[in-house]
Order: sequence, then C-alpha cells, then structure tokens
Amino acid sequence: MKHIGMAFAIAAGTALSGAASAQPISLSDMGSFHIGGEQFVVSGEPIKEVKFTAGGVPLKIDPNGTYMVGQMYVQYFIPQAPKGAVPLLMWHGGGLSGVTYETTPDGRQGWLNDFLRRGWPVYNSDAVERGRSSWPATAKPVWEGEPVLVTAANAYERFRIGGPDSWSDDPAKRKLLPGSQFPADQIQQFARQFVPRWTTTDVPTLKAYLELVDKVCPCVLLVHSQAGKFGMQAAQLRPEKIRAVVAVEPAEVGDMDKVAAMKNVPMMMVYGDYIEQDLRWPKIRANGARFAEAVRQAGGQVDEVDLPKIGIKGNSHMVMMDKNNLEVSAVINDWLAKRGLYKP
Amino acid sequence: MKHIGMAFAIAAGTALSGAASAQPISLSDMGSFHIGGEQFVVSGEPIKEVKFTAGGVPLKIDPNGTYMVGQMYVQYFIPQAPKGAVPLLMWHGGGLSGVTYETTPDGRQGWLNDFLRRGWPVYNSDAVERGRSSWPATAKPVWEGEPVLVTAANAYERFRIGGPDSWSDDPAKRKLLPGSQFPADQIQQFARQFVPRWTTTDVPTLKAYLELVDKVCPCVLLVHSQAGKFGMQAAQLRPEKIRAVVAVEPAEVGDMDKVAAMKNVPMMMVYGDYIEQDLRWPKIRANGARFAEAVRQAGGQVDEVDLPKIGIKGNSHMVMMDKNNLEVSAVINDWLAKRGLYKP
Repeated sequence: MKHIGMAFAIAAGTALSGAASAQPISLSDMGSFHIGGEQFVVSGEPIKEVKFTAGGVPLKIDPNGTYMVGQMYVQYFIPQAPKGAVPLLMWHGGGLSGVTYETTPDGRQGWLNDFLRRGWPVYNSDAVERGRSSWPATAKPVWEGEPVLVTAANAYERFRIGGPDSWSDDPAKRKLLPGSQFPADQIQQFARQFVPRWTTTDVPTLKAYLELVDKVCPCVLLVHSQAGKFGMQAAQLRPEKIRAVVAVEPAEVGDMDKVAAMKNVPMMMVYGDYIEQDLRWPKIRANGARFAEAVRQAGGQVDEVDLPKIGIKGNSHMVMMDKNNLEVSAVINDWLAKRGLYKP
Repeated sequence: MKHIGMAFAIAAGTALSGAASAQPISLSDMGSFHIGGEQFVVSGEPIKEVKFTAGGVPLKIDPNGTYMVGQMYVQYFIPQAPKGAVPLLMWHGGGLSGVTYETTPDGRQGWLNDFLRRGWPVYNSDAVERGRSSWPATAKPVWEGEPVLVTAANAYERFRIGGPDSWSDDPAKRKLLPGSQFPADQIQQFARQFVPRWTTTDVPTLKAYLELVDKVCPCVLLVHSQAGKFGMQAAQLRPEKIRAVVAVEPAEVGDMDKVAAMKNVPMMMVYGDYIEQDLRWPKIRANGARFAEAVRQAGGQVDEVDLPKIGIKGNSHMVMMDKNNLEVSAVINDWLAKRGLYKP
C-alpha cells in the first residue's frame, strides 16, 4: 500500500489553514448519478462490424438508433455530522471536469476533501459532455462546432501561471509569474486532467445544472470560471433554491436583464492575482464588477474579493489547486458562516 | 436536501446480504490522480479563433503543440479500519467508466460502496480514453479507428438483459429475459453512463494499468468484461504484485503463452445467467474455460463460478448493477477471505 503511505506523508505537511487533512472523513453516504440529457436519434447510417477486443468475437454494430446525450455526472458525499446548512454544489470550469476540486496536481488536499472535512455535504459534477458525463461520438453531430482540447502551454499562459508568451518546452526556460502559488512543476500532471470541450453547449449545460438544482437544492453553489455564468444564471432562474453563490474567477457572468432576481441570493466573487498583467482578465474582471454593481443596484448583496487586496498573493486562475488553496477555502467558508449557512 | 433523504429511503430497503448500506463509511483519506499517458505532438495546423463562452472574450487557440494522451484517472478511498489485506483495484468494461461500480442505475448501493463498507481500500479507475481519463480531440488522430458509442438497445441485447432481438422502443414490448435481475426499467439511466470507446487502445490501456499496479500494489484486481484481459495480463506481467484476480464476466482472457506466470496468482471467474441463449457468450465462456484450464495445467488455481450453478439466478452481464448485486459481492468477498486476503 505504497500510495497510501505516500498520501499520508504529503498530507502531514499541509493544510494548516484548512480542515486538517489527517482528520478522518466520516460519511453517512456517498454515491453518484447522471441527470438530464435527452434522446438523440441517428438514422440512415450503414451497419458497422466491430471487434470490441483484438482477439474478441466480432459483432455488427448498428450506428442507427437512439443515444443519450447531454446528461451530467454528479458524485456526492454526505458527512455523518453535517455543519453546512445545505449541500455545497461544486461546478468546474471549461476544459476540465470535477477532478478540478479533487486532489491537487501535486498531491495535496483539494477543496472537495477540505469542504467535506469541514462538514459540508458536497455534490461534485462533471459538466455536460465533459469527463464521466460522456460525449456524443455519434455518426451525426449533436452540437455545432468541434471539441477543443488545450495544451499545457495554453493553460500555463491563459490561466495566469506564467504570463503571455511565458511557455517554453524546456521547463528551465518557462517564465513563471513571480510569487506564483501554482504547483508549476506539476503542469503536465495538471494537463492530464484536461478534457475536450465544445464551445456551443451552454444551453444543454444550463439545462442539466437546473435539473440538478431541482433535485438536490436548497444549496450553495461554488462555481469556477466558465461555470460562473451557469451559477449566476441558476441563481437568477431558481432564486428560492440557491442560498448563496461563490463565484471563483468567473469567466462570464449572469444575465444583465435578470439582476433583480438575485436580490435575495448573496454572492461572493473571488479573484486571484496578476489580473492587470493578463491579456484577457482585465476585461473579464471589469465584466464581473459591472454585473456585481448591477445586482447591488437591484438590492442584492455581492462581495467582490480580490485576494491580493486582503493579503493573499500569487493565485493563478486555478485557485483551488494553488499551494495556498486552503487559505482561500477558509476565507470562503468564513463568508458562508457569516451568512448563517455554516455552523462550526 | 431532498436527495439525501431519498438516498436513505432507497438504502433502507436493500443490501440485506451486502455490507449494510445504512452503515457509515469512515475514511482515513480519499483522493484521485491521473497516471501514465504520454506527450503527443501536433504540428503544421492553422491557428483557430475560439470564443470559450457565447459572450466571452475571443482568443486565438494554436492547435499545434504537445498534448497529454493515454493517461488514466484513478479515484481512491481508504477506510479508517481496513479489513482487506491489500487494496482492491476495480477495472470496468468497454464503453463504460468507473461509474460501473458506483450507485446502480436504479439508485441502490454498488460494489464500490459495498466493498468500502466491508473495509477494503478501493482504487476505482476510468480506463484510458474513457470518462475522466479524457480523450484526444486533437487535430491529428492519436489512435486508429473511430470511437464507438452504443445505444441502450445495443446494450439491452448484448449484455443479456433481453436476448437477441429483444429491444423495442416501446418499453412494454421489450422482451426482458425471464427472471432477469437487471433493473431494466432504468435502462436509459444506465445508457447515461455509456462513454465512447476506441477499439484500438489495448496497448496504452495495459500500459497505464501496469503503471497503476506499480504505484499502488500489492493488491487484488476486480475486473469486468473488457478488463478481464487487462487484469489477467497484469497478473502475468506483475505476478509478484497481484495477490488475486476476480474476473467478472471476462470478455477476453490473458495470454495463452504466459499462463505459467499465473501459477501463484489465484483467480476467480464469475459468470451470470443466460449464457447459452446468447449469440456470443457461449464462445466467450468457452474461451474463459480454456484459459482457466491452461492456468490449472501450469499449476495455478482458478475457480470458475457460474452463478446459476450455485443458485444465484437471473444475472446479466452487468452483475454489479443487478438487483442481487450484493449477493454476488458477498460470494466474491468470501472467496477472498478464504485466501487470507480479508479478515472480517
């Protein structure tokens, strides 16, 4: 059980500000389900003969028929002694899966374990067409456009690990942002998590998230990057079911013409470091501020937290993987506790 | 927390012969990692402009560069008081992911929770190019051939839920095998789990499994369907690290010219019902028997368990999802206990 020993060794040295990672995780239940999606019909295609294994018995596969597409995978963990008033739903960003919130690329505790150990019931999902949610390798396309998979280089530059044009295939020549908290020596381990993503699936994605909300909420949404939009839209469409939204580096926001719907849904927006130095993030950050102000004008409460302004420096776009990830989750948990959603 | 209540309600009525599902799951740790894979270079392709979100800031994506392909996702759960002598590695079959072993399509406890509650450390993985292991949506193909996604109809007929030509789009007209234990009214929920699979990825798949074995074993392998082959090959290539193989409905077997390598690796082969009535399974079952006999001739121990012969009837190919799934896991656990690998 070499790995087990190793996991403990890693755990022992970290997590000072988070829920202690040597602490056991006691669950009353855990499990998973797929939700949403629809049947998609393919017809008029020729029969294929397929050998499912090299030495296996060949069989004819009819590619025509009815497939399930657009469903979403959700894994849940329910602590024996919940301290969160409602479940915490974790929604990841583009090109990734629920693995975002699991063990960090360098083997430290991620936010899934940290919030679980704090006593939150957690529902961690893979967005539609990502990871265990499956994708449609059908003879007829389901969605417009092609799926995009990115390289480690692209993520390194775009997720504010290095700045623009910071990548080199030679690790020694990469220009890591000074003071970066991202475990940059594990960038290829992070790249192993990348999954292809369509850029045209917002509609089925929001639909599946709403079905999840209708099934398991009231709840708190913890959303990252691309899911910033889905979390805010879900709060706008199901305000009575969302007790709070924590939007970590939202790449996009909710609908400007529905800001009033969020007046009773408190929101925390959390941003990392190096935003001014990036090509895209100054504009994305400004979009976030504009939305926050519009919600406030409509009577809502939005707290914008720029981590460097509260003394937490060096965070990349992947805050939940950064070396100080548990310092940030502590800030989030305190914010939720102050809103009566968590009793330590 | 509607779902939590529902999960308990379902749990209360089942699991009589398995580890009681109302019993808590106490973990010293849980987590995940990706293992294996290699860097894959794409060059000479034109730059693409991509909007990652409909209202988002467009950016240029260079599809050239180095991608990670062929890695494998592994999620692990370590009980606080382990009763298994070594970890149990769960490897799923073709067209599926590790979700195979999680909650059943009709919401009952699957084998992941059952073996965990029994006290086994469990490592549940998604095979290479399936689920959270990701797949290569690269501008240049990585593997030969096309990925295959199947329909509910195909699985219904091929996994011995109904027999050949048993499917109808009208649920009332489907010919379920008499006495079937599969939760057939949830066939579309099962279909939501299906993922595309290449049929040409045996080499990278075995490679990643061997890397996993080298990282976390000694261990017991619990393998299903397509993974029957990989489990037996792993035992042949790493006999000192594999304490036992439990092959549930192996669709294919190990290498006939390496049977002697398994002489110290006890193996249990488990088969469900309706095999004689199927188009392919009589031949697959005979392949299994031939391999088992060759291992025995070489001095090894193989127990072939045809469930109907020990009074457990009605099992489909998806034994771990059938309504009597926990009756079968009890038989497997007893077999492991008799070999000194589990102390109740």
